[in-house]
Amino acid sequence: MITQVINVNEILEQALLFDFYGELLTEHQKEIYEQFVLEDLSLGEIAREAGISRQGVHDLVKRCSQTLKGYEEKLHLVEKFVAVKEKVKQIDQLLEEYEEEQREELLGSIRRISDEIIEEL
Amino acid sequence: MITQVINVNEILEQALLFDFYGELLTEHQKEIYEQFVLEDLSLGEIAREAGISRQGVHDLVKRCSQTLKGYEEKLHLVEKFVAVKEKVKQIDQLLEEYEEEQREELLGSIRRISDEIIEEL
Repeated sequence: MITQVINVNEILEQALLFDFYGELLTEHQKEIYEQFVLEDLSLGEIAREAGISRQGVHDLVKRCSQTLKGYEEKLHLVEKFVAVKEKVKQIDQLLEEYEEEQREELLGSIRRISDEIIEEL
Repeated sequence: MITQVINVNEILEQALLFDFYGELLTEHQKEIYEQFVLEDLSLGEIAREAGISRQGVHDLVKRCSQTLKGYEEKLHLVEKFVAVKEKVKQIDQLLEEYEEEQREELLGSIRRISDEIIEEL
């Protein structure tokens, strides 16, 4: 069960990295990697369709994964976007709470988060 | 005067591209490009310090500039960040106006922008 959770997180991470940096892969890499990570096809299925060996697909996917992680290690853009998204969710949450009390305090918090986002960009 | 404005915008654009994708340049490229774009040193000054020709610095800066633009053409991450930043500024503006009237309408607008940001990420 723990293994499954790790796998799910890893797939989400791979999908996110692909979403950000996928365009820096070659067309061939993109096609294979997309089938594996986003369309969830098996190595065997992809190998048959692409006319390459199962091991070839495995190596390509692994290499792509390392390439994408390498971009993130240098640029940290996924990390930045995840942080911004988190703050926007906080704003949304505060707006929902707004209907209740402590209005002034909430507005102060929204402004603070909004300023933090600006500093972050 | 118009030329100056174009130059200022171009330098800002180069600085922004460098800020996002600079880590994908080599250490040598980064050093030279940073001196030219961020520290505003002349080609001659950089050439003397680096011990290469003025033409060499010129070519390197031009090549780096093209490389960085190439990343943006593929990834559009600067464009995305500029759009998010613009929306956050709108939120800030709305919060400033909030003290005045039409409170409900403003809150609706803030929520709308905040949702747009989430969709964008």
